[in-house]
Amino acid sequence: MNLPPLPAIMLEPLVRAALLEDLGRAGDLTSDAVIPKDHRATTLLTARQAGTVAGLDLAMLAFRLIDHKVEISVERADGSHVADGEVIASVSGPARAILTAERTALNFLCHLSGIATATASIVAAVRGHGAKIVCTRKTTPGLRAVEKYAVRAGGGSNHRFGLDDAILIKDNHIAIAGGIHPAIERARSSVGHLVKIEVEVDTLAQLEEALAHTPDAVLLDNMSVDELRQAVAMVAGRAITEASGRITAAIAQAVAATGIDLISIGWLTHSAPILDIGLDYREP
Amino acid sequence: MNLPPLPAIMLEPLVRAALLEDLGRAGDLTSDAVIPKDHRATTLLTARQAGTVAGLDLAMLAFRLIDHKVEISVERADGSHVADGEVIASVSGPARAILTAERTALNFLCHLSGIATATASIVAAVRGHGAKIVCTRKTTPGLRAVEKYAVRAGGGSNHRFGLDDAILIKDNHIAIAGGIHPAIERARSSVGHLVKIEVEVDTLAQLEEALAHTPDAVLLDNMSVDELRQAVAMVAGRAITEASGRITAAIAQAVAATGIDLISIGWLTHSAPILDIGLDYREP
Amino acid sequence: MNLPPLPAIMLEPLVRAALLEDLGRAGDLTSDAVIPKDHRATTLLTARQAGTVAGLDLAMLAFRLIDHKVEISVERADGSHVADGEVIASVSGPARAILTAERTALNFLCHLSGIATATASIVAAVRGHGAKIVCTRKTTPGLRAVEKYAVRAGGGSNHRFGLDDAILIKDNHIAIAGGIHPAIERARSSVGHLVKIEVEVDTLAQLEEALAHTPDAVLLDNMSVDELRQAVAMVAGRAITEASGRITAAIAQAVAATGIDLISIGWLTHSAPILDIGLDYREP
Amino acid sequence: MNLPPLPAIMLEPLVRAALLEDLGRAGDLTSDAVIPKDHRATTLLTARQAGTVAGLDLAMLAFRLIDHKVEISVERADGSHVADGEVIASVSGPARAILTAERTALNFLCHLSGIATATASIVAAVRGHGAKIVCTRKTTPGLRAVEKYAVRAGGGSNHRFGLDDAILIKDNHIAIAGGIHPAIERARSSVGHLVKIEVEVDTLAQLEEALAHTPDAVLLDNMSVDELRQAVAMVAGRAITEASGRITAAIAQAVAATGIDLISIGWLTHSAPILDIGLDYREP
Amino acid sequence: MNLPPLPAIMLEPLVRAALLEDLGRAGDLTSDAVIPKDHRATTLLTARQAGTVAGLDLAMLAFRLIDHKVEISVERADGSHVADGEVIASVSGPARAILTAERTALNFLCHLSGIATATASIVAAVRGHGAKIVCTRKTTPGLRAVEKYAVRAGGGSNHRFGLDDAILIKDNHIAIAGGIHPAIERARSSVGHLVKIEVEVDTLAQLEEALAHTPDAVLLDNMSVDELRQAVAMVAGRAITEASGRITAAIAQAVAATGIDLISIGWLTHSAPILDIGLDYREP
Amino acid sequence: MNLPPLPAIMLEPLVRAALLEDLGRAGDLTSDAVIPKDHRATTLLTARQAGTVAGLDLAMLAFRLIDHKVEISVERADGSHVADGEVIASVSGPARAILTAERTALNFLCHLSGIATATASIVAAVRGHGAKIVCTRKTTPGLRAVEKYAVRAGGGSNHRFGLDDAILIKDNHIAIAGGIHPAIERARSSVGHLVKIEVEVDTLAQLEEALAHTPDAVLLDNMSVDELRQAVAMVAGRAITEASGRITAAIAQAVAATGIDLISIGWLTHSAPILDIGLDYREP
Repeated sequence: MNLPPLPAIMLEPLVRAALLEDLGRAGDLTSDAVIPKDHRATTLLTARQAGTVAGLDLAMLAFRLIDHKVEISVERADGSHVADGEVIASVSGPARAILTAERTALNFLCHLSGIATATASIVAAVRGHGAKIVCTRKTTPGLRAVEKYAVRAGGGSNHRFGLDDAILIKDNHIAIAGGIHPAIERARSSVGHLVKIEVEVDTLAQLEEALAHTPDAVLLDNMSVDELRQAVAMVAGRAITEASGRITAAIAQAVAATGIDLISIGWLTHSAPILDIGLDYREP
Repeated sequence: MNLPPLPAIMLEPLVRAALLEDLGRAGDLTSDAVIPKDHRATTLLTARQAGTVAGLDLAMLAFRLIDHKVEISVERADGSHVADGEVIASVSGPARAILTAERTALNFLCHLSGIATATASIVAAVRGHGAKIVCTRKTTPGLRAVEKYAVRAGGGSNHRFGLDDAILIKDNHIAIAGGIHPAIERARSSVGHLVKIEVEVDTLAQLEEALAHTPDAVLLDNMSVDELRQAVAMVAGRAITEASGRITAAIAQAVAATGIDLISIGWLTHSAPILDIGLDYREP
Repeated sequence: MNLPPLPAIMLEPLVRAALLEDLGRAGDLTSDAVIPKDHRATTLLTARQAGTVAGLDLAMLAFRLIDHKVEISVERADGSHVADGEVIASVSGPARAILTAERTALNFLCHLSGIATATASIVAAVRGHGAKIVCTRKTTPGLRAVEKYAVRAGGGSNHRFGLDDAILIKDNHIAIAGGIHPAIERARSSVGHLVKIEVEVDTLAQLEEALAHTPDAVLLDNMSVDELRQAVAMVAGRAITEASGRITAAIAQAVAATGIDLISIGWLTHSAPILDIGLDYREP
Repeated sequence: MNLPPLPAIMLEPLVRAALLEDLGRAGDLTSDAVIPKDHRATTLLTARQAGTVAGLDLAMLAFRLIDHKVEISVERADGSHVADGEVIASVSGPARAILTAERTALNFLCHLSGIATATASIVAAVRGHGAKIVCTRKTTPGLRAVEKYAVRAGGGSNHRFGLDDAILIKDNHIAIAGGIHPAIERARSSVGHLVKIEVEVDTLAQLEEALAHTPDAVLLDNMSVDELRQAVAMVAGRAITEASGRITAAIAQAVAATGIDLISIGWLTHSAPILDIGLDYREP
Repeated sequence: MNLPPLPAIMLEPLVRAALLEDLGRAGDLTSDAVIPKDHRATTLLTARQAGTVAGLDLAMLAFRLIDHKVEISVERADGSHVADGEVIASVSGPARAILTAERTALNFLCHLSGIATATASIVAAVRGHGAKIVCTRKTTPGLRAVEKYAVRAGGGSNHRFGLDDAILIKDNHIAIAGGIHPAIERARSSVGHLVKIEVEVDTLAQLEEALAHTPDAVLLDNMSVDELRQAVAMVAGRAITEASGRITAAIAQAVAATGIDLISIGWLTHSAPILDIGLDYREP
Repeated sequence: MNLPPLPAIMLEPLVRAALLEDLGRAGDLTSDAVIPKDHRATTLLTARQAGTVAGLDLAMLAFRLIDHKVEISVERADGSHVADGEVIASVSGPARAILTAERTALNFLCHLSGIATATASIVAAVRGHGAKIVCTRKTTPGLRAVEKYAVRAGGGSNHRFGLDDAILIKDNHIAIAGGIHPAIERARSSVGHLVKIEVEVDTLAQLEEALAHTPDAVLLDNMSVDELRQAVAMVAGRAITEASGRITAAIAQAVAATGIDLISIGWLTHSAPILDIGLDYREP
């Protein structure tokens, strides 16, 4: 698996902001009061349920931005599957610093591992078919780059990263533009030919209309499995086909079996529950 | 219901960052290409499932930061329950601006309404008992202030906002400090008497040890309903009692019936699914 | 000409930073000392040489961020050709504010109009051929989004906006990867099929090798017009063709006549001289 | 040559912003896909034309902010003249990091070396005369401090850094203030006597009027060489004399020969073309 | 004395901003010109009057952010009392860097040590009584966290850190709310029971009214020592008692002798003069 | 009195940061709970001691950034002397917003008015002599621009704003450089002739040595009034003379009477106590 890390320069501002949000104006009252200054500790980041890990770089930054003397030894890298109870990493160093950074580190790690885990479960469900699982722009404000990274860690792919990296003509655009025809024509005349054009359609009739304008991709929204099968046949390789619309793990395999190219799933990033990971103190 | 809004000065940096994250380096290619420049539209923010609304101020800021000529008329304010299909607000003005801001506005609104909805369902489950539903520091990095606001919108209360506004002595602190006794004593000697001290205990034996030091509150972690009932009796009003540990809607009522003061629930902020809200174009 | 403006939210941070850079720690000593407080003035932004305008939104923001009472009336919008001496806009309001913002407004306007003017001259040179003029990532640090906008204002198109919106395999990548073959194969296996893959080649032999891997586009670097003509014939429509390498206005037409799809020109953004525009006081 | 470096604390924010602008939301797709993770490389920053170097600290920061394991060995420091083909520095370390930072590093280095080279050519043209070459506030927004540093690297001097470090009464100020007399008088009465006062004049008549008020310096704008010679004679050492107004390399020597103290040249910072510098992979 | 340091992540943005404020757009002209580049120096931070030290972490960051090769050896840590002439720390390394950072380092150190010194003098005055000395929200904008830290360094305690960490009902609130009764009732019904409620009263009659609502604390504003003594008796342990209102060192002991719990003093943070500390060059 | 305001763009970041520092993560708990949502109020900013006003623009921004519907009517502008009890401005609008912003507004206004008041008292003491009162770089970190503005509001002048706007050779520079002679010579050879050079001397012997190098100004540090008088005579108009070193109001007149040009006083900005100003609710 090739899962290139995001450069730390992209992660550090997120981690700094999260730490400052937690430290407030007086820092960690409890650890400062209760833990002796020079006490050192070894702790373990441990999975409390099975899943796929993502976000270790952010977690490590959280500890190290509080105290660069904290040392982290990763046992199970991003993208790894872990069993319930498995140790992901050990974190050792000044005890105050570890406890001060604990919640911020876990908030990143549990959230992103939750996304990776949800993605991995859908990816597994469609294994053997050609369909790729992709995420959407329905991400948590401020965390898009890392949430899309978590989807990659779970074996998924990414769709558009923002409004600026492809044309996606959706239902509201079509309604306001006055139809599929004028919408695609305007798009084609205004962007360079390195930008792909995708059109959202809700029915096979709309699909037929769209195909007449040779879009690069078609987004088949809220169609039944039967409709999707017909749509894929109609497209016949002339465009990339993408299915969307509340596709759950339960029906993902059937959707994939239609021969669709992409299955895009918003809830991977907007509603996946966390993967429960804890920081356990190890008696010396 | 008194739900004071957060000052816009606290919200604006979040919305600006989220918009810039979506606009990237070239802005909204699709709307710029497809929607005529001076086209105006009226759209409706509509609930696609029943729930509780939170985050309208952020959504409104998203539209208005793209174009201050967008006008929003709120039908169902934050904290309101909405039925499936109910209109939450109408948004009218320059069509390009509305579509450019749409995803950012919805990402805030759906996420925070999801938290408010989850909170409201638990609050409803414990109605009639004295227990308050509170959230934790297990929030999405960067969004703590608004997620805690969403909990309030759902009828819940807030626990600590950060590491700096109360002492909470947890299991790792106790382990490293060498016991409940030294931990509480150090805490008491180091903070002013306006700061409350809460101690986490896992067993009734620990509770007894903790009560000897008259903490302001005790966090009863992962106890059964039976244990909680005994714990409440042991405390007998000498401290605020708080239950925590994967408390689901299913057992919240039974927990509340023990007479506990607070039920803290991490998943309200870290794992609540979104409330599905859409922006629908209304034909003129 | 459809030249959608960039949202002000993308421009404002640039203008604020530029104004603060000029104001320093004491503001505009000269205007504060010399210009009576309530004096109003009308001034004209006037072209001092012929060219194409770009950057008026930034210039207007500069004046209005110093004093929102400044009023600007645009005569020649971005993308317009102006003659030497032609008035681009009139700026009237508090005299101190106008003079305080003058240099910042002009620094943006002259720089971006210089890029637009350079672009327009090349676009004019290739008119009648199918070639589009595109810019590169050789932009001034911090100004990429607005410089690429200026290229659009001049009639050009944009290539990649950053490292993250397409695969461009360059000479160094090929050298390190051990050849064109492994480089393209690795690229194809690691990115989604919505991302385009372009390969830089220096010779026709390399081109032949690259075409075997069906890239979406080929960058023909530093080839002679003759070589370019052969390359276009070899590609025969199987990929987008792009010429690069110090292509000046003098040879752009000949390059375009080869049938090439894109001509990419770094100096549009890194070395175009400003368009000289001044702010002239108009006696009342 | 004494060319003190700017503190890294002034440069780092510029480099971080430029890197993030290029990395976008997904990082360097190409290098991440094509270059094996642990591959190391040695590359050379090589001049592709003769000129004067400036900006190495920024370039080095770009590489090291992506990966602190990149090592840079400088052969020709800022302020050095380099011949076409000469190696400026070698850059070795993780290959991915080097290629990811390459464009940002070069964008700073080529731009600033371009300014230094232009400056050095004018400085050479006036050698033997007392005139200093100075730059203006016509700088690229956001880059003033480093562009002025590049002028120093080229042997030039700096004029005002902003609106707040000297009084410069220009034509618009005089027009609005109602003449040279009231303008200088107001200036003198409002600023401390540590702030210098300079007045722009277009004619010898204006110069005479200005000299009556003993300004610290006079800016002789758009005067012919003959007029400048007379102006210098009229001033007779009572004020610093500065010539400005589209002074090219061709006439700089003649201007300097008038005995003028300063020659200020806007195009050094607003229109100097880059110095072409490339990053070449060195086969191991 | 347990005086936990604030995490560097909280201090670094303040120090960076202060250094940039001083460096301006050209850096340290004097040191760059006068001090040879590789000159090293040893200097001593020396108290020029007796007092209590606070802010060494900020001062050290100032030196090290300019040049990480500067080494600091602390002789008298934060919270220590120093005599006139006593050495607080030695600072050695590159001479330019030390002189460049000197003023910023001293501005933090002298200001915060001034606050610590003022606090320590009041703390000493009330020794033997139970009263704690606390500061207020009357802090210098931008420096609240570090000024409150300085109060702790002087032996004082902190009151509210901001508007969000306790309820403090002041005279204007009472006036607008229509009396003490409605004000406290509204406060109690709207906040969780982990938030303390304090009420400001000016007279014993108001105190009686307030006590009927069992606030957690009462702020006795501008009362005479006699009134304070009566107030403490009236409260009789039912609430924390706090005295405020221009309490000087001269009367602090008498106030403390009333049995009051807290004495809050605004001038500790808003008007304490600096502690004079200098940086002296030590001949090698 | 000509006291040009600083542009709001320079003030707004300071006020935003200060408000956010006070609002924390939950906003103004007290006002939100106690004050009815739509309640409006009129309040008066009233001097509680006599002094000179400075900082009204910052105070007004504080109120208006919380709610732009707050209206402020200024009675006594910056630079005005006010008597004890005099109304400086009335502030009316939404009561919650006024109380939320109150402390931040007052923290700016009282601090800066304190500086203006201290300055005005010294300026008054030296009236009739030619000496100007100037401040130093001993300012509160982050507030230099506004503190120097406050000095101007009090009738004083400003010395250097930072390390970059003049050469000031101090004792440590001289010691490290190896004497006055090499220090001045290096300074002269490295900076442009628009930058002034000032040298600090402690004795008349040093002064004589310094004058041999014709500096623009001499800083006479810690000299007695007698020595200052001799120094002024020695300089005899060849340089600007500046006295410094703990000059109090008590001896300022005597110092001014020596004929000195400038008296620089660090404590104006680092140790001036606030001017006590309150916000009083006016019964409707």
